Amino acid sequence: MRSRVTLADVAARAGTSKTTAHYVLNGRDQEMRISEDARQRVLAAAGELGYRPNLMARGLRTDVTRTIALITDTVASGQFAGQLVYGSLEAAARHGHLLFVCETDDDPEIETRLVEELLDRRVDAFLLATSSTREVEIPPALEKSRLVLLNCRAPHTGVPSVRPDEVQAGHDAVQVLLDAGHRDGIWVVGEAGEHVVAGRERRAGMRRALTAAGVELAGRVECHWWPESAFEAVDAWLAAGTRPRALVCLNDRVAMGAYQALARHGLRIPDDVSVVSFDDSDLASWLQPQLTSIAIPHYELATRAVDLLLADPVAEFAEHRVPMPVRLRDSVAPPA
Amino acid sequence: MRSRVTLADVAARAGTSKTTAHYVLNGRDQEMRISEDARQRVLAAAGELGYRPNLMARGLRTDVTRTIALITDTVASGQFAGQLVYGSLEAAARHGHLLFVCETDDDPEIETRLVEELLDRRVDAFLLATSSTREVEIPPALEKSRLVLLNCRAPHTGVPSVRPDEVQAGHDAVQVLLDAGHRDGIWVVGEAGEHVVAGRERRAGMRRALTAAGVELAGRVECHWWPESAFEAVDAWLAAGTRPRALVCLNDRVAMGAYQALARHGLRIPDDVSVVSFDDSDLASWLQPQLTSIAIPHYELATRAVDLLLADPVAEFAEHRVPMPVRLRDSVAPPA
Repeated sequence: MRSRVTLADVAARAGTSKTTAHYVLNGRDQEMRISEDARQRVLAAAGELGYRPNLMARGLRTDVTRTIALITDTVASGQFAGQLVYGSLEAAARHGHLLFVCETDDDPEIETRLVEELLDRRVDAFLLATSSTREVEIPPALEKSRLVLLNCRAPHTGVPSVRPDEVQAGHDAVQVLLDAGHRDGIWVVGEAGEHVVAGRERRAGMRRALTAAGVELAGRVECHWWPESAFEAVDAWLAAGTRPRALVCLNDRVAMGAYQALARHGLRIPDDVSVVSFDDSDLASWLQPQLTSIAIPHYELATRAVDLLLADPVAEFAEHRVPMPVRLRDSVAPPA
Repeated sequence: MRSRVTLADVAARAGTSKTTAHYVLNGRDQEMRISEDARQRVLAAAGELGYRPNLMARGLRTDVTRTIALITDTVASGQFAGQLVYGSLEAAARHGHLLFVCETDDDPEIETRLVEELLDRRVDAFLLATSSTREVEIPPALEKSRLVLLNCRAPHTGVPSVRPDEVQAGHDAVQVLLDAGHRDGIWVVGEAGEHVVAGRERRAGMRRALTAAGVELAGRVECHWWPESAFEAVDAWLAAGTRPRALVCLNDRVAMGAYQALARHGLRIPDDVSVVSFDDSDLASWLQPQLTSIAIPHYELATRAVDLLLADPVAEFAEHRVPMPVRLRDSVAPPA
């Protein structure tokens, strides 16, 4: 397969030197005293051959190739990779940039190698994203680059970060139940182990809403953040005789498992038990009844991060918090 | 923020000209009669400053920047974007390439503009991927580039394509039911409209398996490929009195809706009704009972396509078919 049209091709067709063609195509023909005849022949040849200037060469001159890189720990296992990549793509395009996507498998050696490869390709600016909210270390190779953190933070480094407002989300989830009239038998389903920051912040927000209303949590059902684990935990707990009035599930997959366990014990949602959750993944509208869930705004997180990254002048350091919208559906009702 | 270490920085530190530094760093010092003293000063300076040669500059010389681009119609709405991007990333890295990811929203104008931007950045080779199996036109700007089609095909163009073997998958789905002893009351749930090629090929494979066994399909329940549509269609159909023995759902989301409708009518899976499906998405193992599903091998599709793309010499034209593995779970039993 043939490679692209080069400056040499244009010069050959125009019957000029490459230098002459270069000056014409870079708008320096007057300065370099190129004849009008030669100028017209070069422009005609460039047009006929479909020549386009090489942005990489421009990159070499101006140190900007209008390319950014999204470096993630995991794309594949992230539940919302699509929206995150899509938001980054759209915002990058709006700024006239293209996007490299890389995945490190959370391995610092792979991360270092990828960053060097990207710097070798003169990438202007970097997004460093994690699939779950957590603290990260800045790769030394990126210390001199434009950088914004997405869904993670690096305290004391001065690197701007963009994260969902998990504390407010925790508050809002409980508020949905309080607004429906619940005060007793409110349980939390899920555990804090895996998703330390998100879980911790959501619970802090819940406490704030409960304290303000003078309401106490009935307790917590421990399980991993997956349907099977949630089903088993809630099933065993219901079998032991507990009858909750409302569940705050720490994500939609936990809610799916809770739905299955409630159905098995003949408990109806929302008539017998109200359920509220976090994420607003596809599952939330696929479950029956449709699930009220506090959304992680992946698209907005990504576009906000890219906007900060490509802002001119460079954005001030800050921890940017993106609101998590409440999606009210059919899984919450007043207590029976 | 500071830009990267340049050749000029190295030359300044070494006390040589840029030309001298260039020849040393490109292994041409003997040819150009650079003194051993100057050579050592340049290498020491490069080491101290952490200078790395600019691959883009190499790209200008060799016309190869070791970069490929994955151009998709939709990343965000694709159910399996993660695995597709992940497979492409892994295979590209194995070949020493980085990956641009682009999305065209299936708009030919955006596609053309993106392709030109990528060519301007000297991208070597392209994957053109669609979220559902279909025929595409090759963008004129890509006619001279290395190109492999992923999940789509362009008949009569000679461009290699990689697709799942949907016909065999349709055969295998029915064979699972036949092997369990089903001969009567086998219904298909879903419709062909949206996903023309996949649906058509799956049904062709089903017919082959049914004909070979001398079995006739009981009929088809029409619905869109989403849980809500499938729930409504199957619910109305069961309400009209039909009692199926086995359902072939055209994807896992349809199966989720069918599960909900069967539960509402008190029909147990697999005791009363067996269910088999396609995709093997996360849902398949989250549903209760876990769903037997014929997997779309997104990761393998992507790695196969990248391997073909970066093969040396260029892969022969062919329509490559990747097998769709049968994932046996708990949703199929012998007829009651």
